[in-house]
Amino acid sequence: MPTVEEYIADNQAIFLEDLKEFVRIPSISALPEHREDMVRCAEYAAGEMRRIGMTRAELLPTGGPPLVYGEWLGAPGAPTVLVYGHYDVQPVDPLELWTTPPFEPDIRGNEMYARGAVDDKGQVFMHWKAIEAHMKAHGKLPVNLKMFIEGEEEVGSPHLDQFLKGHTDLLKADVAVVSDSGWLDRGIPSITYGLRGLTYIQVNLKGSDSDLHSGGFGGAVANPIQILAEIIAGLKDEKGRVTVPGFYDRVRPLSAEEKRSLAGLPFDEEKYLKQLGSPALFGEEGYTTLERTWARPTLEINGIWGGFTGEGSKTVLPARASAKMSCRLVPDQDPEEITNLLEARLRELCPPTVTMEIIRMAGMGKPAMAPIEHPAVQAAARALGKAFQKEAVFVRSGGSVPVVASMADLLGLPVVMMGIGLPDEHAHAPDERLDLGNFFGGIRAAAILWDELAATPLK
Amino acid sequence: MPTVEEYIADNQAIFLEDLKEFVRIPSISALPEHREDMVRCAEYAAGEMRRIGMTRAELLPTGGPPLVYGEWLGAPGAPTVLVYGHYDVQPVDPLELWTTPPFEPDIRGNEMYARGAVDDKGQVFMHWKAIEAHMKAHGKLPVNLKMFIEGEEEVGSPHLDQFLKGHTDLLKADVAVVSDSGWLDRGIPSITYGLRGLTYIQVNLKGSDSDLHSGGFGGAVANPIQILAEIIAGLKDEKGRVTVPGFYDRVRPLSAEEKRSLAGLPFDEEKYLKQLGSPALFGEEGYTTLERTWARPTLEINGIWGGFTGEGSKTVLPARASAKMSCRLVPDQDPEEITNLLEARLRELCPPTVTMEIIRMAGMGKPAMAPIEHPAVQAAARALGKAFQKEAVFVRSGGSVPVVASMADLLGLPVVMMGIGLPDEHAHAPDERLDLGNFFGGIRAAAILWDELAATPLK
Repeated sequence: MPTVEEYIADNQAIFLEDLKEFVRIPSISALPEHREDMVRCAEYAAGEMRRIGMTRAELLPTGGPPLVYGEWLGAPGAPTVLVYGHYDVQPVDPLELWTTPPFEPDIRGNEMYARGAVDDKGQVFMHWKAIEAHMKAHGKLPVNLKMFIEGEEEVGSPHLDQFLKGHTDLLKADVAVVSDSGWLDRGIPSITYGLRGLTYIQVNLKGSDSDLHSGGFGGAVANPIQILAEIIAGLKDEKGRVTVPGFYDRVRPLSAEEKRSLAGLPFDEEKYLKQLGSPALFGEEGYTTLERTWARPTLEINGIWGGFTGEGSKTVLPARASAKMSCRLVPDQDPEEITNLLEARLRELCPPTVTMEIIRMAGMGKPAMAPIEHPAVQAAARALGKAFQKEAVFVRSGGSVPVVASMADLLGLPVVMMGIGLPDEHAHAPDERLDLGNFFGGIRAAAILWDELAATPLK
Repeated sequence: MPTVEEYIADNQAIFLEDLKEFVRIPSISALPEHREDMVRCAEYAAGEMRRIGMTRAELLPTGGPPLVYGEWLGAPGAPTVLVYGHYDVQPVDPLELWTTPPFEPDIRGNEMYARGAVDDKGQVFMHWKAIEAHMKAHGKLPVNLKMFIEGEEEVGSPHLDQFLKGHTDLLKADVAVVSDSGWLDRGIPSITYGLRGLTYIQVNLKGSDSDLHSGGFGGAVANPIQILAEIIAGLKDEKGRVTVPGFYDRVRPLSAEEKRSLAGLPFDEEKYLKQLGSPALFGEEGYTTLERTWARPTLEINGIWGGFTGEGSKTVLPARASAKMSCRLVPDQDPEEITNLLEARLRELCPPTVTMEIIRMAGMGKPAMAPIEHPAVQAAARALGKAFQKEAVFVRSGGSVPVVASMADLLGLPVVMMGIGLPDEHAHAPDERLDLGNFFGGIRAAAILWDELAATPLK
C-alpha cells in the first residue's frame, strides 16, 4: 500500500482530470437559469464523497440549491472535524474577457483556468483527495470527519443560518475547517484569522414615466443618472472615507500589536500594484493597503446602469438609473445596522425630483475573527508549514465568508481557515485560475491536518 | 378630377396603409446591423417619389447610408422649394417598454404607434401626399420642388455638410422647408424658429486591468464607477447649472421681448409635468421651463454603465466604467468649442487613480435661428393656420436638427420649420406615436404651403 504522500504524488494527473469534471458544471448560484446545474453539481459532489469512502453522502434541502452533507465517523475517541466548502461559483460576465471559456478548464503553465477553479471547487476537491489518500494508505482517517458543501456562498448564503440552526446535532463537532481563503502572496503559506462581513443593496431611481428626448426635454426635469451620480459622490469624501453617519462607530480599532504584526508581513506594494494593473493605489487616508483591505470597512459601487448603453449615440434623457452597492464590514460592525444607516443616508441625499427604491439583496454576513491561539488554528499552521516546507504566516482577508461567523455563533465551534488561493488568481473575475503547486500542496496539507488534529488536545 | 382638399380627404385610409409600409422598415442608422435596411428604406423613398410624379428620384452616395434626392421642376418662373426630411430612425431599446413591436405599426385610437411614426417618416410622408394631391388635382405643382431625404439625422448627420458643399447647384433653391419639428401642444399649430445645437461624447474610465473581488481588493484601489459618479457630480452645481468653465460665455441672452413672447404662449406646467410622469420639474435657476428647454444650453448624461448589471448580487470591484453625455447648445455657442471646454473640465476632474478616454461621437450640430419676419416663414404660418383652422404660434425647440444651420450657412437659404409633432408623442422613446389628425392636417398644410409660396414674393 502507498503512503499518503506517495498516493498524492503518484495521482496528480488523475486528480486534475477529476477536478476538471467538477469545474465543468456551470453552478452559478446567482442566475436562475442554472438551477439544474446546481443540482447536477451537488449530485456530483455527493457521488465523489461516496467514491472516496465516506459512509454517508446526501443532498439536504434548503430554501435554495441543495446542501451536500457527507460523513465518516469511524474514529471513536478522536476529535470530530467539520469541513466546509461551497460548490457554487460566481457569474462569468464579462464573458469576452476570458481567454478560454470559463467552464472548459484549460491547463496553461502551472495553472488551471476556469470559473470556480480556486473559488471554491479546487479547495473543496483538495479535501476529498486528502481523504482518499488516507483511505488508500490506511483504510481509515485519523479523525471523525463531517463535511458540508454549500450551494449559495456566492449569493450570500441566504439559507445557511436557518440550516445550521436546524441541524446542530448533525453538525456537532470539535472544530470547523473552512478552505475558502487565500495566501498573502505566492510562496507565503497563510492561515486566515479575520474576515470582513458584507451587506449588499440595489438602488433604483425613477424620474419620468418613460425615456425622454434630451432635446425636447433636456433642462425641464432632473436626469436620474445625474442624480444617482451626485448621490454616489455624496457617499464618500475626497479622501475615500465613507460619509454615512455612524458608519465607523463600531469599527474595532487595530491594536498597536496587530498594526506591528501586519507591517511585518512580506507585502510588496509595487508588485501588488503591477499585478492589478491600476494606475495607483487609493483608499482611506491614514491606513496601509493591508489595513484598508483587511481591517477597515468599505463601500463599493458594484454596478451601475441607466439610459443608452449601446454603440453610437442616442440622445435620450433616461427615465431610470440603478446601482448595486455593497459594504465590507469589520468587527464589530453589524450588517443590519450598517444597511439601515446607508439607507438613511441614501434617502437623505435623494432630491424630490426622482423617486428612490432600495432593495436589500441576499448576502448579509457578519465579520469574523478566529482565535489565533486555539490549538486547532496552530495545528493548521503546522500542517500548512509542513506541506509547503515553509512557516505559515497569519493574515486577515478582505473577503467575506458568512459561514465562518455563523459556525462560530450558531454551532459554537472554533473555525480554522486554511486555504490555498493566491491574490492574483482572479477569483470573481474573468480568467479565474488555480495554481497547481498550491493545489497539490493543499491536498498534502489537508492530509497532514487530520494527523495534527488527531494528535492535538482540542479543549 | 378631385380638388386637392377632396383628394386628401378621400384617401386617408390608403395614406395610412402606405405610411405603415414606410415605417415597417427598421432603418436604425445608429446600429451597423441595419445597414441593409437603410438601403431598402432609401429605395422605398425613391420609389415613392417616382410614384407620386416627381421627375427625378435617385439614391446619392454619402460616406454613410445613401441620401434620397428627388425633384419636379415644371413651374418655370415660380420659386424653387427645397424640402428636407430624414428616413432614419432612433434605436428602439428598451424594447420591453413598447406596448406593440416598434416596427409593426399599430393604430390605437387616433394614433399610429411605431418607431419613426412622427420622427420623421410621418412628416416626410406628409409632403409626398401633398405633392400627390396637387398632381392628381392639377397635374402639376404651383412651385418647383426639390426634396432630399437624409439617412443619418439620428446619428448627427456626419456626412451632410460635405454633401451640401458638393451639391450646391443640385440643391439651389429659394427657400428650404424642414418638417422635423413639433407643436407647443396638442391643438396649437406651431412654426419653429429656433433649434438647439448638439455635441455628444463618451467617457471611458479604466482602473485595474480586470474586474477585482470587492472583498480582496475593496479599499486598495479606486473604483471607476465611484470616480465616474464624482466626475459627473462635478459637472453641475446643486442648482442644475453646468460648472464647465466658459460654458455659458457665448450664450445669447433672451431679449425682454422674447421673454415676454415665450411667457405669452399657452403652456400648462401642471399638464406638462403630468404628461412626463415626473415627480417634479427641475433645472437651472432663474428661467422658466420653456426658457430652459428652448433658450438655455444643457448637459445631460445619456447613458452610464459599469460593473455587474445583471440580476442578483455580484461582489465585483469593476475595472471600467463609462458614460455617454451630450450638450444641447443655443446661439451663439459653438459645438467644437464647447466640446473642448467639456473635455478640459473632465480631464481636470479625473484623479490619477484611473485613466480616462474621451471619444467624440458623430453628431455635432450648430444651434439655429430662423428669421420669423421672412415671407416664407410667414407663408408657412398661414398655411398651417388655414389647414388647422387656428392661428399658428412661433416657438423654439430644444431639439437639434443640424441640417437647419447647415442649409442656412452652406446653401444660403432661409429655412422654414413647419412640423406636426406633438410633445407627448415619445420621439426617441418607447411607444413613439403619430397623431393622425395632425398627420392629415399636415398633408393639407404642406399642400397649401406650395400655393402660399407660389403667391409670395420671396426676395
